Amino acid sequence: MTDTSATDLHGTVLQLPVRDRRPRAGGRSNPRQRSTSTGNYLNLVNCLTPTELVAPEGIEAIHQASLTVLEEIGMDILLPEARSRMKAAGCDVAPDSERVRFDRGLIAEMIGHAPSGFTLHARNPDRNVAIGGNNLVFAQIASAPFVSDRDGGRRPGNREDFRNLVKLAQSFDVVHLTGGYPVEPVDLHPSVRHLDCLSDLALLTDKVFHCYSLGQRRNLDGIEIARIARGISNEQLDREPSLFSVINSSSPLRLDAPMLQGIIEMASRNQVVIITPFTLAGAMAPVTIAGSLVQQNAEALAGIAFAQMVRKGAPVIYGGFTSNVDMKSGAPAFGTPEYMQAVIVGGQLARRYGLPYRTSNTNAANTLDAQAAYESAFSLWALTQGGGNFIMHAAGWTEGGLTASFEKFILDVDMLQMVAQFLKPLDVSTDALALDAIRDVGPGGHFFGTPHTLARYESAFYAPLVSDWRNHETWTEAGRPTSFDHANRIYKETLARYERPPIDPAVEEELAAFVARRKEEGGVETDF
Amino acid sequence: MTDTSATDLHGTVLQLPVRDRRPRAGGRSNPRQRSTSTGNYLNLVNCLTPTELVAPEGIEAIHQASLTVLEEIGMDILLPEARSRMKAAGCDVAPDSERVRFDRGLIAEMIGHAPSGFTLHARNPDRNVAIGGNNLVFAQIASAPFVSDRDGGRRPGNREDFRNLVKLAQSFDVVHLTGGYPVEPVDLHPSVRHLDCLSDLALLTDKVFHCYSLGQRRNLDGIEIARIARGISNEQLDREPSLFSVINSSSPLRLDAPMLQGIIEMASRNQVVIITPFTLAGAMAPVTIAGSLVQQNAEALAGIAFAQMVRKGAPVIYGGFTSNVDMKSGAPAFGTPEYMQAVIVGGQLARRYGLPYRTSNTNAANTLDAQAAYESAFSLWALTQGGGNFIMHAAGWTEGGLTASFEKFILDVDMLQMVAQFLKPLDVSTDALALDAIRDVGPGGHFFGTPHTLARYESAFYAPLVSDWRNHETWTEAGRPTSFDHANRIYKETLARYERPPIDPAVEEELAAFVARRKEEGGVETDF
Repeated sequence: MTDTSATDLHGTVLQLPVRDRRPRAGGRSNPRQRSTSTGNYLNLVNCLTPTELVAPEGIEAIHQASLTVLEEIGMDILLPEARSRMKAAGCDVAPDSERVRFDRGLIAEMIGHAPSGFTLHARNPDRNVAIGGNNLVFAQIASAPFVSDRDGGRRPGNREDFRNLVKLAQSFDVVHLTGGYPVEPVDLHPSVRHLDCLSDLALLTDKVFHCYSLGQRRNLDGIEIARIARGISNEQLDREPSLFSVINSSSPLRLDAPMLQGIIEMASRNQVVIITPFTLAGAMAPVTIAGSLVQQNAEALAGIAFAQMVRKGAPVIYGGFTSNVDMKSGAPAFGTPEYMQAVIVGGQLARRYGLPYRTSNTNAANTLDAQAAYESAFSLWALTQGGGNFIMHAAGWTEGGLTASFEKFILDVDMLQMVAQFLKPLDVSTDALALDAIRDVGPGGHFFGTPHTLARYESAFYAPLVSDWRNHETWTEAGRPTSFDHANRIYKETLARYERPPIDPAVEEELAAFVARRKEEGGVETDF
Repeated sequence: MTDTSATDLHGTVLQLPVRDRRPRAGGRSNPRQRSTSTGNYLNLVNCLTPTELVAPEGIEAIHQASLTVLEEIGMDILLPEARSRMKAAGCDVAPDSERVRFDRGLIAEMIGHAPSGFTLHARNPDRNVAIGGNNLVFAQIASAPFVSDRDGGRRPGNREDFRNLVKLAQSFDVVHLTGGYPVEPVDLHPSVRHLDCLSDLALLTDKVFHCYSLGQRRNLDGIEIARIARGISNEQLDREPSLFSVINSSSPLRLDAPMLQGIIEMASRNQVVIITPFTLAGAMAPVTIAGSLVQQNAEALAGIAFAQMVRKGAPVIYGGFTSNVDMKSGAPAFGTPEYMQAVIVGGQLARRYGLPYRTSNTNAANTLDAQAAYESAFSLWALTQGGGNFIMHAAGWTEGGLTASFEKFILDVDMLQMVAQFLKPLDVSTDALALDAIRDVGPGGHFFGTPHTLARYESAFYAPLVSDWRNHETWTEAGRPTSFDHANRIYKETLARYERPPIDPAVEEELAAFVARRKEEGGVETDF
């Protein structure tokens, strides 16, 4: 799990840059020593052969159907500049209409330009993440309007909650990067919210962060903040992806103006776009999972192809977010058997194109009960066995994404660490096979005090954060705490231990000056 | 999922008997119509390619090390009759000692006699279960000393609890058989407990049941009750496995007298034994998972080989139960990353020998919280992807097996049904690909009212038992019920709906007469 290289789908080794081991500004030689992690969870590699739920002919059928969708039905492309670029690239752009149709050969050609893997650079090189191949990275929850913990209940997010959630993300190595605003801080005015939030993300963590594609200016600010935080030139930024943006299509078959603008701004600077249709079977997509995947695939391929029209070789990620609705209410459902199937087949599709695959850790629970756990665990099952590379909403997501939960964040971190432990190669060396220990103990003995046990005991097994393994009597004496109680305690302990990662004071000054200047300029226009 | 045949590992088709569709005694033509299941969960087939966590050389290393254990260290065999039989079969039986050593060639030869699959026959042929190959069957929790529900708390089991849990097992098709006594009914005297319990299992369910190997007489009574319940001759019983018994070794490397007697009685009548070492890494087995698997494999192979010495071709199942201990307390831990690894590698070993594989749905939670769910979901992940065939403790197990929980039973049934739904082949027919529906709706529309949706909506997705997908406001108005609340309600509703499955009155009379006679004889001797 500590390798600094990983093999991509075509056998090429993705090299992470040589680590910078010099002491950083602030005098701390290794930020990881202050982490509350219980193991090394950087640079996770998923060695499992991905599960194939659908035979190759089925994948081909979905692929061909989605190309037919793009060729015959097309998509509505709501930004004139994007339509012009598409026309120039050879797409069929209907006159006086937003409709664009994509020749299947053109799609194949453009997808062929997309890299199968790349490195996303953080301001702390230890936090760089390798995307694609067998690499597995977890991003914190993003974009919840509400936040909750047991003490304060469910409430609209504010900057303090935002900052506390970001601090939690910094505190665990298994959360490899942040995924956006974990909760929307509504006490910050929308015209300058992105400046404060991106500045917080850059200062409170040393990990890669995300900028929203909500208008060109926000993308440009995000790119500049990423550049300043890393202390690099524009030229270096253009060579090194250092920021990402999730692009959602407005399913079915539509890309709106800010999203298209986001693709243009990000791809033209060689920054990462994750193209993610939100294809909810029975609502914005066909009621069949296969039909939803056809539509997901069409929308994802169109967005990825457009990124390549903007800049050939631009780093992109194939996003899948197909789930189903509750048959009774029409509400979105997550972590369901249908979600598991969609996640696994989505991985088969992404690998067909040699693209990194983004999926999510989801659930629709209203509280931290068994449902929250099993829907998330089923999501983790599917995304791990399905070969997910970039996992959005990996920690903290609940209530179908409406709420960022402090306790769910801790529960998820524990589950993510368990997944990471499960993926560790099993040691089958002669020493691990323990023939001598078995011989020494013999029939009817026990292994508690043997040298083989004593030498390995402390680090042999994963020590969970949340699981309470005390016997019933001791647990009862302790007041019968549930997972909810433990997670509540742990998130507070973690925040109390949090220390801001070191940063070069000159970088911090430059960042503050940029934010101040942009605020003076009024930030961005808002339509309210 | 409705196939009545399944292919075993060697490509042979395992034929389940042609179903008896005649109305049964009692006048009900189809017991399944009264089930509370939401789908057809009989005859589950796991079409996934099993996950391989260890390379073939690693499996070979574990295999060879375990043969070395059997050859050089051997096992303590505590029953003289078993040692005699082993000596006659060619084992190295030390004089004036319980130690028996097994030549690796002899082990290989004996294992070669074991069938790769077979059918376990229930008194209702609809409930027959195919064991081995790609078949997946779930058995209810067994052998808990305590029982719990939210209302009554945790308490020692009695016959009423026992019967209620058995009634729940009958109520869901996804619980394919019972696994033993779901809870030990301590209000029944041990001398006759097995008679009342086996009679209850035979009458309250029409599914396959288990008899404990706790002395020859109990095995003989169990075999006779299974015969009477099916209304068949001894000769037919000898041809058709209809009862099973779990044989645990006393790890490390010991088989005690009642277990050996159980192998002899069951195998000689062609009934099923599941050989399951309980190899807890760091306690009764080496602290390394690989070392524990070496020991598990040695003990399992010895038991299976002995069953073949008793009767070549006797139906056996390779059992794995390797987990780890809590590093802080030494208490057993379940559903851990190490458990997941052991379950998957156990499957690789069982397939190496072409044997059906038994594993379990485990957790160590003290209550129905997130931990209960994620430890079980991780267990289900491993046993599904690892190719488990026969899943013990699939529903109701909690607190490391100390407690049978009514609410956990419901939660597990829901999770088992989700696994079954996940394993359903994904329909990628032209109709399912939904190109016409996508064309009809077009960019920017929605699929709620389309004919394609309306024709499939009601049965398109799994409708969960426990998950609460209401929005936060509605859920709050409903009193903020948790999964624990829902499961509590559902188990009571299920019991209220329970109806005893029909049985031929002559069979019931014969069964009652047998139990009465055996009780008059005093049941079995007890040592207390």
